[in-house]
Amino acid sequence: MTGNACPSSALDPAIAARLKRDADGLVPAIAQQYDTGEVLMLGWMDDEALHRTLTTGRCTYWSRSRQEYWVKGDTSGHVQQVKSVALDCDADTILVKVDQTGPACHTGTRTCFDADSLPLAQ
Amino acid sequence: MTGNACPSSALDPAIAARLKRDADGLVPAIAQQYDTGEVLMLGWMDDEALHRTLTTGRCTYWSRSRQEYWVKGDTSGHVQQVKSVALDCDADTILVKVDQTGPACHTGTRTCFDADSLPLAQ
Repeated sequence: MTGNACPSSALDPAIAARLKRDADGLVPAIAQQYDTGEVLMLGWMDDEALHRTLTTGRCTYWSRSRQEYWVKGDTSGHVQQVKSVALDCDADTILVKVDQTGPACHTGTRTCFDADSLPLAQ
Repeated sequence: MTGNACPSSALDPAIAARLKRDADGLVPAIAQQYDTGEVLMLGWMDDEALHRTLTTGRCTYWSRSRQEYWVKGDTSGHVQQVKSVALDCDADTILVKVDQTGPACHTGTRTCFDADSLPLAQ
């Protein structure tokens, strides 16, 4: 797969044509709780994961470690119901607003950013 | 530069030791408005950019297109004052809560995600 083509996906060609992918064909996808604004996690999507996210109502990512698709919550029950999806100005980042059931993080915290604050030296 | 070492940076070694970088030595950094929760943009940081972000109070990114550091707002005046910085559970994503002056996007919109909503088919 190159950064410019993903022929096996059913993603709308008009979206695929402007999506800018990394060398692995992936785009970072930020999941944000739609009502509270919490940034829950960052996952990765290829064209097919984005297509499934847009058409099934459930957030679907590509697992870089397992090299497979995963529907958030299929194992844990902590699903992400899709409320809206947007590309950024460069079409190289996706923002998905979701309704997160339970904790987003596999460690059990609400978001993946709750446990490791870095000290500021100002 | 490998994914595991960045010897030229002044970043705290305790942080550098657990940071997980991509093949280019970079980590995606989400900038979020600290009070409203708006996701403003996604940039990229290497160890040195993270160090500068933690120590100067101003968000600093690595530009993949220009291959240089950029302090957000140095050209536009639309600075990001750093309020807090956190790593995610895998230490491969950074969340920076900021106070954004003016629009975050170079197109003039408040966030980089305001102009390109994708249609849901459910």
